[in-house]
Amino acid sequence: MKNTRRDFLRAAAVTGAGALLIPSMANGAVKKKPVSKKHSLKLKDEAIILFQGDSITDAGRDRKNGEYNNTDAIGHGYALFASGHLLEKFAEKKLKIYNRGVSGNKVFQLRERWDEDCIALKPDVVSILVGVNDYWHTLDGGYKGTLEKFNTDYRELLTYTKHKLPDVQLIICEPYTLRGGGAVKPEQWYPMFDEYRKAVKQLANEFNAVYIPFQTMYDKAVKRAPDRYWAPDGIHPGLPGAKLMAGGWLKLTGLRKSGKKKKEKEETA
Amino acid sequence: MKNTRRDFLRAAAVTGAGALLIPSMANGAVKKKPVSKKHSLKLKDEAIILFQGDSITDAGRDRKNGEYNNTDAIGHGYALFASGHLLEKFAEKKLKIYNRGVSGNKVFQLRERWDEDCIALKPDVVSILVGVNDYWHTLDGGYKGTLEKFNTDYRELLTYTKHKLPDVQLIICEPYTLRGGGAVKPEQWYPMFDEYRKAVKQLANEFNAVYIPFQTMYDKAVKRAPDRYWAPDGIHPGLPGAKLMAGGWLKLTGLRKSGKKKKEKEETA
Repeated sequence: MKNTRRDFLRAAAVTGAGALLIPSMANGAVKKKPVSKKHSLKLKDEAIILFQGDSITDAGRDRKNGEYNNTDAIGHGYALFASGHLLEKFAEKKLKIYNRGVSGNKVFQLRERWDEDCIALKPDVVSILVGVNDYWHTLDGGYKGTLEKFNTDYRELLTYTKHKLPDVQLIICEPYTLRGGGAVKPEQWYPMFDEYRKAVKQLANEFNAVYIPFQTMYDKAVKRAPDRYWAPDGIHPGLPGAKLMAGGWLKLTGLRKSGKKKKEKEETA
Repeated sequence: MKNTRRDFLRAAAVTGAGALLIPSMANGAVKKKPVSKKHSLKLKDEAIILFQGDSITDAGRDRKNGEYNNTDAIGHGYALFASGHLLEKFAEKKLKIYNRGVSGNKVFQLRERWDEDCIALKPDVVSILVGVNDYWHTLDGGYKGTLEKFNTDYRELLTYTKHKLPDVQLIICEPYTLRGGGAVKPEQWYPMFDEYRKAVKQLANEFNAVYIPFQTMYDKAVKRAPDRYWAPDGIHPGLPGAKLMAGGWLKLTGLRKSGKKKKEKEETA
């Protein structure tokens, strides 16, 4: 379409229609639009990106392998799909991407290992997905944490992170469940789990984080294929779910396309 | 840009420029263009897709796990990135995606296991990446195969495949090397390996296959980041290389976007 559009612009300019319309089509003008908070992530050269969370982030990574940009170390979930995309699209930037998700973690357990598994890595971007275990593990009575504790712990974790890493860009992901999944008995989960989701959204606002509404994405996805297609147990994504999550993460962080390609597009437009 | 473009079309039509330009911009018109062979892949509902090849395709898959659409069974290379994309974009189609790449394989070894690992799966689409070992394993004198044997064996494999699966859609991937990789001594590899690449391209033409020029893609990519960023040993892709290959595969098979989204785009354009 590029040539067609360029010809069109040229022809429109000749006919006079261009005078009216070209300014609003020029990419410079688009750039001046107020940028929505959710699209505001910036990646500097050699930026360090950290994925943090529970089993959904962990996704079978080799925890003895602490390397960045390494498939085994990043695991095989949404973080892998997002990382592959970033490392390919932004190859020039020499990003360093880590995964430190640990299966079973609740917020207070992230906090216990946060100095080592977050602060010490000096990340420029931290993406967190946590919360499902904070509720799930109460269901069999084994864990006594409350919504209030979740909220308090999570706020403290974020406050500490901003204190130690004042320039960090936060991405906060909504915990989710798919009600048709094998591990989700709706009468146990709802409406109580919804309160955990709301708490996370509120924290994302408070901390000016990019917010990734995974529940909303899955709610749309289950109209296209059954719940278990995306996540057999309703919590841990299969391959289609992992890719879905990465796609949403990339879109809402504004990192789906590299600035370079946008620039090329401008130049050829 | 959608609204802007629509406004533009409307205004252009009013001014008269539209009479000249709208037909070539309408998506219907674009569809009527002769479709290039390389973009011609069609996925029917419940299509079975098979990735075949050597270690680059294998990519650490669990060979005891023969399932379709399963991350462990598909491994962690380009086939995973391509599969995730397909399973997400075409969720409605209930695709079944298998990987049967085996590390170290040369063409004649694909043939030895072809009945079990291809024909029996009744695939609608077969994507093959093979050839690097057919040359590599001759370098230490351990394997005596020639270019001629490679060519003959590969043609026979494809002929047999078309005989057994007359409606199969073939995707033939170019073998490649990155000359700055740790396992590639240029004086050993070139120009002889180039002949293997040419043979594969010729076969793709003969068999009317979608052809994926991985060498060309890597030749472009190494202008953006060093060879070892993409594939440390010059043969096996790292995470960025795997994503690069999947992206190219999806683009050239025409499967990067689902028909559904194209249709939505047309409706809102």
